[in-house]
Amino acid sequence: MKMKTLGKVALAVAVASLLSSNAFAKEKVYKWKLAMTWPKQLTPLASPPQKLAKIVKEMSNGRLIIQVHGKNKHKAPLGILDMVKLGQYQMGHSGSYYWKGKDINTLFFTSMPFGMTKAEQTSWFYYGGGMELMQKAYKKHKVYSYPGGNTGVQMGGWFKKEIKSVDDLKGLKMRIPGFAGEIMAKLGVSVTNIPAGELYTALERGTIDALEWVGPGMDIKMGFHKIAPYYYTGWHEPASEMQYLVNIKAFKKLPKDLQAILVTAMKYTAYDMYNENFDASANAWVKMKKEYPNIKVKEFPLPVLKEMKKANDELIAKLESKGGLTKEIIESQRNYMKKAREWTKISEYLYLKNMIALEK
Amino acid sequence: MKMKTLGKVALAVAVASLLSSNAFAKEKVYKWKLAMTWPKQLTPLASPPQKLAKIVKEMSNGRLIIQVHGKNKHKAPLGILDMVKLGQYQMGHSGSYYWKGKDINTLFFTSMPFGMTKAEQTSWFYYGGGMELMQKAYKKHKVYSYPGGNTGVQMGGWFKKEIKSVDDLKGLKMRIPGFAGEIMAKLGVSVTNIPAGELYTALERGTIDALEWVGPGMDIKMGFHKIAPYYYTGWHEPASEMQYLVNIKAFKKLPKDLQAILVTAMKYTAYDMYNENFDASANAWVKMKKEYPNIKVKEFPLPVLKEMKKANDELIAKLESKGGLTKEIIESQRNYMKKAREWTKISEYLYLKNMIALEK
Repeated sequence: MKMKTLGKVALAVAVASLLSSNAFAKEKVYKWKLAMTWPKQLTPLASPPQKLAKIVKEMSNGRLIIQVHGKNKHKAPLGILDMVKLGQYQMGHSGSYYWKGKDINTLFFTSMPFGMTKAEQTSWFYYGGGMELMQKAYKKHKVYSYPGGNTGVQMGGWFKKEIKSVDDLKGLKMRIPGFAGEIMAKLGVSVTNIPAGELYTALERGTIDALEWVGPGMDIKMGFHKIAPYYYTGWHEPASEMQYLVNIKAFKKLPKDLQAILVTAMKYTAYDMYNENFDASANAWVKMKKEYPNIKVKEFPLPVLKEMKKANDELIAKLESKGGLTKEIIESQRNYMKKAREWTKISEYLYLKNMIALEK
Repeated sequence: MKMKTLGKVALAVAVASLLSSNAFAKEKVYKWKLAMTWPKQLTPLASPPQKLAKIVKEMSNGRLIIQVHGKNKHKAPLGILDMVKLGQYQMGHSGSYYWKGKDINTLFFTSMPFGMTKAEQTSWFYYGGGMELMQKAYKKHKVYSYPGGNTGVQMGGWFKKEIKSVDDLKGLKMRIPGFAGEIMAKLGVSVTNIPAGELYTALERGTIDALEWVGPGMDIKMGFHKIAPYYYTGWHEPASEMQYLVNIKAFKKLPKDLQAILVTAMKYTAYDMYNENFDASANAWVKMKKEYPNIKVKEFPLPVLKEMKKANDELIAKLESKGGLTKEIIESQRNYMKKAREWTKISEYLYLKNMIALEK
C-alpha cells in the first residue's frame, strides 16, 4: 500500500470514528408525532402540546421534533390512547376520564365530583403518591401518563330555569357527560349527550334545558350566555387535569438528555395551562357580564348538593368494592384530600372569605 | 512535501475542522454559580435552585453545570442582587421585596398585603403583563428576574394573646418585617426585627408577644406552636413568590438551547415549589394539631382588618404618588386583581364554600 492510500485510510477511519462518537450520535434527530383530542385552535386545552413542541425543539437544538396533530387531522378524538399504545403516535394529549369505559382505573386522574381543588390535586400527583398510582394504572396500556394542564374549577353549567329543589331536577333534560352524568341521572335528570356543534341550537330550541361546558374562557365562544340566564357554580369537576400520554418503547429509545427535556417540558406546559385558562376565564367573565348584565350566578341549594353528594358517594362505594387498584386510588385520593382540605380551609379559603368581607 | 506528510496534514485539518464545528462547540461546558438567601436545608424555599441545577445538568447533558451556594457559603444572604449584578454569581435565588430599600419598584413582585392569590398573581406574571413590568424594574440592575417559587397564603402569625380589637394591637411587641410591618406600626404595634435563631426564646420569654413566619410547613421546625396558642389566618402575604436572578451578560453568552433549558427549568421549578410547600403545610398542620390540640386558629376581627386595610391603602397611595414605573406597577396589579378576583369568587371560592357547608 502506498503512503498516499494509507493517509486516506487513516483520515477515513478518523472521520468515521468521530461521526459515530457520542458527540455526533447525540446529533441524531428524533421525529415524533403527537395526537390531540382537540382541534389545534381549541385553546387553552390545545395549548400545552403546541407549546411543548416549540420549547422541546429549542431546548434540544432541533434534535427532538414533535409534530402536533389536531383531531381534524387524525379523525379519532377518542382514540388517542389506542393510537399511542400501538405506536401510531409517540405521544397523545387528551383527558384520562375518556378511557373509563375501557379501564375504570383511568377515571380518577382528571377530576372527581366533590373532589380536590387544583392545588390539592397537583400536590397529590407530585407529592402525595398520585403519579405512582397513575403510572401503575397505565402500565398495562404500555404508556406513561403525565398531567397535561388543568382547567381549575369548572362551572356547574348553564340552565334556562332556576333549580330551587331536587324536584326541579326531575325530568330536566341536560347535557352532562361521564361520571357527573351518572350522578345527575340518579337524581332524575334525563341525561343526554349531544355533539359540541349542535349544543347551542339544542339549548335554544329546548331540546335540552341545561348543559355544562367548562368555564367562561371556553364557554364564551359557545354563546350559551345569550340564551340561558342561570350560570351555576361548580361541584362536578373542581380541577380537571388534561393528560399527556407517551409510548413507553419510544420514550426508552430517546437519549437520556432528550428524556429529561421531554419530561420537564410536559410538567411545565401542564402547569402553565392552568394560568392561561385562569386568565382567559377572568377576561371572558368581565366581558360576558358587561354584554349580558342579566346573567345570574347561582349556587345549587344545599339540599340539592347533599343529594348529589349522596349519589356520588354511592357510586364511589360501588367502585371501591371492586378492590385492587381501584380501591387503592380511591383511598389515596380520599386520605390526601382530607388532610389537604384542612390546610386549604385555614389558608386560601379564609383569606378569600375575609377579602370578600372587606369589599362590602 | 511527501504524500505521507500530506496525509497527516489533511487528517489534522479534518479533525481540527470537526472540533471547531457546531457539534463540538456545543459540547463546551458552562460552569455557573448560584447564590441563595437561604441555607441549603431550608426547604421548600431552598428547593427550586437545587432542583434546577439537577435538571439543567440532565437536560443539557452536562453542558451547563450550576453550583448552588447556600448562605453559609457566601455569608451575604441579603447581598444576592449585588453579587449577581456584579457577576460574582451568574444566578441568585431570593425574594424581590428584600431590595425595596435599594429600589422601591422591586417591592411588588413578591406579594402585597390584601393582594392577589397564587393563581391570580401567577396569571398576572405570565398573562397579565407582570413579567414585562418585572424585567423593566430589574433592567437597571443588569439582571433578569423570574418567579422562583410560591409559598401560597402565609399565616398571619403566632400570638400569645387573642386580638379582639384594634386596641389590643396598641403596644403589642411583634416581629413582622417589611411592608406589613409598616402597616402594623401605623396601628400602634411595636414592630421589631429579631434574627431567626433567637425568635423562639424571644417569644417564650415575652421579649415579643407575637411574630409571623410562613405557614405550618416551615413554622413547625421553629416550634412556635408550643408556646403561643393563637394562630392567625393570613392577610399580609397571600402568595409570596421567591425570585430567580440571572446576570444578563452571562445569560447572553449561553448558546440558544442552553438559554431555553435554563428558562424552562426556572419556570418549572418555581411552579413546583408551590406544591412542595402545600404538601409540607398540609402534613405539618395535621401533626401540629395532633400534638397540640389547643392551638386555636383565629381570624382577625373585621374591624381590625378594616384598619389594616386603611393603613395599607394610605401607604400604597403614597407610593403611587411617586408616578413613573411605581405607579404603573401598582395600577397593573390593581386592575388585574379586580377582574381576576371576580372569577376566583365564582369558581374556587364558591366551590370551597359549598364543600365546607357539606361537611357539616
